[in-house]
Amino acid sequence: MRIAFYPGTIDPITTGHLDLIRRALRLFDRVIVAVGIGRDKAPMFTMEERMAYVTDAVRGLDGVEVRPFDGLLVDVVREAGAHAIVRGLRAVSDFEYEFQMALMNRRLESEIETVFLMPSESYTYLNSTVVKEVARLGGNVGGLVPEMVERALVERRAGRNS
Amino acid sequence: MRIAFYPGTIDPITTGHLDLIRRALRLFDRVIVAVGIGRDKAPMFTMEERMAYVTDAVRGLDGVEVRPFDGLLVDVVREAGAHAIVRGLRAVSDFEYEFQMALMNRRLESEIETVFLMPSESYTYLNSTVVKEVARLGGNVGGLVPEMVERALVERRAGRNS
Amino acid sequence: MRIAFYPGTIDPITTGHLDLIRRALRLFDRVIVAVGIGRDKAPMFTMEERMAYVTDAVRGLDGVEVRPFDGLLVDVVREAGAHAIVRGLRAVSDFEYEFQMALMNRRLESEIETVFLMPSESYTYLNSTVVKEVARLGGNVGGLVPEMVERALVERRAGRNS
Amino acid sequence: MRIAFYPGTIDPITTGHLDLIRRALRLFDRVIVAVGIGRDKAPMFTMEERMAYVTDAVRGLDGVEVRPFDGLLVDVVREAGAHAIVRGLRAVSDFEYEFQMALMNRRLESEIETVFLMPSESYTYLNSTVVKEVARLGGNVGGLVPEMVERALVERRAGRNS
Amino acid sequence: MRIAFYPGTIDPITTGHLDLIRRALRLFDRVIVAVGIGRDKAPMFTMEERMAYVTDAVRGLDGVEVRPFDGLLVDVVREAGAHAIVRGLRAVSDFEYEFQMALMNRRLESEIETVFLMPSESYTYLNSTVVKEVARLGGNVGGLVPEMVERALVERRAGRNS
Amino acid sequence: MRIAFYPGTIDPITTGHLDLIRRALRLFDRVIVAVGIGRDKAPMFTMEERMAYVTDAVRGLDGVEVRPFDGLLVDVVREAGAHAIVRGLRAVSDFEYEFQMALMNRRLESEIETVFLMPSESYTYLNSTVVKEVARLGGNVGGLVPEMVERALVERRAGRNS
Repeated sequence: MRIAFYPGTIDPITTGHLDLIRRALRLFDRVIVAVGIGRDKAPMFTMEERMAYVTDAVRGLDGVEVRPFDGLLVDVVREAGAHAIVRGLRAVSDFEYEFQMALMNRRLESEIETVFLMPSESYTYLNSTVVKEVARLGGNVGGLVPEMVERALVERRAGRNS
Repeated sequence: MRIAFYPGTIDPITTGHLDLIRRALRLFDRVIVAVGIGRDKAPMFTMEERMAYVTDAVRGLDGVEVRPFDGLLVDVVREAGAHAIVRGLRAVSDFEYEFQMALMNRRLESEIETVFLMPSESYTYLNSTVVKEVARLGGNVGGLVPEMVERALVERRAGRNS
Repeated sequence: MRIAFYPGTIDPITTGHLDLIRRALRLFDRVIVAVGIGRDKAPMFTMEERMAYVTDAVRGLDGVEVRPFDGLLVDVVREAGAHAIVRGLRAVSDFEYEFQMALMNRRLESEIETVFLMPSESYTYLNSTVVKEVARLGGNVGGLVPEMVERALVERRAGRNS
Repeated sequence: MRIAFYPGTIDPITTGHLDLIRRALRLFDRVIVAVGIGRDKAPMFTMEERMAYVTDAVRGLDGVEVRPFDGLLVDVVREAGAHAIVRGLRAVSDFEYEFQMALMNRRLESEIETVFLMPSESYTYLNSTVVKEVARLGGNVGGLVPEMVERALVERRAGRNS
Repeated sequence: MRIAFYPGTIDPITTGHLDLIRRALRLFDRVIVAVGIGRDKAPMFTMEERMAYVTDAVRGLDGVEVRPFDGLLVDVVREAGAHAIVRGLRAVSDFEYEFQMALMNRRLESEIETVFLMPSESYTYLNSTVVKEVARLGGNVGGLVPEMVERALVERRAGRNS
Repeated sequence: MRIAFYPGTIDPITTGHLDLIRRALRLFDRVIVAVGIGRDKAPMFTMEERMAYVTDAVRGLDGVEVRPFDGLLVDVVREAGAHAIVRGLRAVSDFEYEFQMALMNRRLESEIETVFLMPSESYTYLNSTVVKEVARLGGNVGGLVPEMVERALVERRAGRNS
């Protein structure tokens, strides 16, 4: 069985993440979506919230497992029995950062391959940071995130403004 | 009347900003220079100071209006009756960030176009962050910023060192 | 009256070109689509064909003029009474080539500004060369080019294979 | 069974190609190495020679099939029963070209995914064109290509110089 | 005597830094490795520690001097009697940042040239930030940093976890 | 004595080349400007013409030698007793091509270092190909090339048009 590991802070899940998970499912028997603790990133949502949003969003997709992760990525991937790390590439700046990470991971564990997939061009502009900023300013993020996340972002804004 | 909106934290205005404003004036009847509140950026200068520096620098340029702005960019642009957002492009890294922003803005408001202009190649290396760093270390920023800003940067340094 | 000049070999026109012309029309009173002779490019279609395809495609768009061009771009732009050269930017590689051209044009004629617009992200992958290659191999280019061009590409292929 | 399609002119095969084929074999049950006719590229070696060099080089690797290909890539991939196109990414310039191709291929056939793998950093500088140029000038290409190819390149040079 | 100035926060020295120092020594009579105070960077190691690690690592290399530095780079370089600033270039993102810095430095002091060298491709993925992150998570950084630094990183981790 | 080797087709020399030669002279005792035969490039000017233009342009610069070159670059550099290859970097696309070449050259001859210098930002847009194209179309290339080259380009154009 071929298992892919898709790691990220995923704060929160967007339709871009979902697009990538669906693409990975065509290539692998199982995809582990691993929600990182994001220690240095001061996430907007708690680990529990981020896990819940991902779990809700992938309901109905066969072969997806959601789990939290902490620690050195290659250790976690190996323990999960995965053969590949999956990452999305959208832009040149992604490319350089991702390659540096992938080369370091390969040095630490040569048996694990990093596989790059290309999201739909409709999601070129989409990432969690931009979505949070737009929602904070009252912009409409419908279609950019699952409905459960959209509601959470609206509530956050309402809470902040009250 | 064709109106362009030129947004930024502008902390502080440089001769590179001025170069771009002059170029935008050739293409549009009016250019609104919008000084953003820069909530996440911890600006060196207050909104009042930044507004004053821009206002002083564009004196004598017909068709320029300076105003503060806060909130979702496309909302502010639409309320201002502007048809275009103007941005300067200098480097590949600018390019990717600006395109991501422009695509998101287009999704939020399809009627507003982002227009990219190219500053003079003399200003390729020039931005507010570098200018502030050089001034902080005692370097000469004459010619890189308007005189009023140069004096303010020298005073800041003197104040910090006394 | 603000006039934009949109030059290219346009061999043949694609829906990406059309998208850009429509965007330019929001910003300028008139857009001159200038079909270059493409001396070094060995175009697939003759100047007459390329002119005809563009003319047919922009029918119904107010304020567009189609004309052939040869010679030094800035001379032609100035003679046309245009104030700006319009170019589309899709990728980093576009960016560097276009900037080099724009800087040279600025040196040759400082009064003419180059304005960069961003096509729809749906057309990121689209250019005349790719379209011709796909058509040559029998792929479906419907929606990527105007119908008149699609028919011409299919005929070319039929002619070559018969 | 998960099948990957690895297309290229492969004129001639280098140790960089081999590195990528080995990596693809970790992720897929079968890898089809497809030697393109390269109609526009004036290959140095004939299709027969290129096929022979690849076949010799992958001897001993389980699950690799070598075949010639011509025509529209997505048609050939579908007919081969493959689920993925595999491509190596080494540099930003690769990235943009490959993404444009992958987006076009996705538009032509949405069921086929393009998967990008990262060759060893030892092969960052390595491609068939550079190898041929170095060999032409008498440089040592040992280790950059399989021995069979090295001998062929040396013979070519001897033939040209005699 | 031709003197090069190699500045950086160097927090801590890696084998990538050492590779670059060795390359600079082939081109210059003397190389001054200047350890910056890194005021905005919250270094992991104190200036004394960083100086000690560099000093230990360059022992045995003729013509290298290690010193701390603070203030405007071009002033410090001129006072040191150096003719050139040496910087390593590994990736496109390096390139743009480094060029902006080099252009600004040239404007501040036109007599000093910035010289870019290319580290070994084995160190493409290597920088101090990645090394610290890997060490923090318990990964093996042997070979990526001098032994003295490796021990220090392991001790830090042990201290944090106890 | 430290010797730099500056290779290129140099068809013809521009003020950008001259800028780089002057910068190299600050760092090296001697700079060998090596005019490549350019076998695959169909140069506009003969080797004799290109040599003459360079020789005329560097008159008065101490420590510059002009010579033709053919063959494998690293062989020629070693025979010349040079320690470094000097190349100018202007743009991201330069960067990738130059790095690939430099890595290959390092593999072929590890003792020779490639040194990258940054031309004046005034010459970002300047290269021989653009100059020839502008001159061909009747544009003014004064200041972009030495006077001797400017006259030659004007004569070529006159000859072609008569």
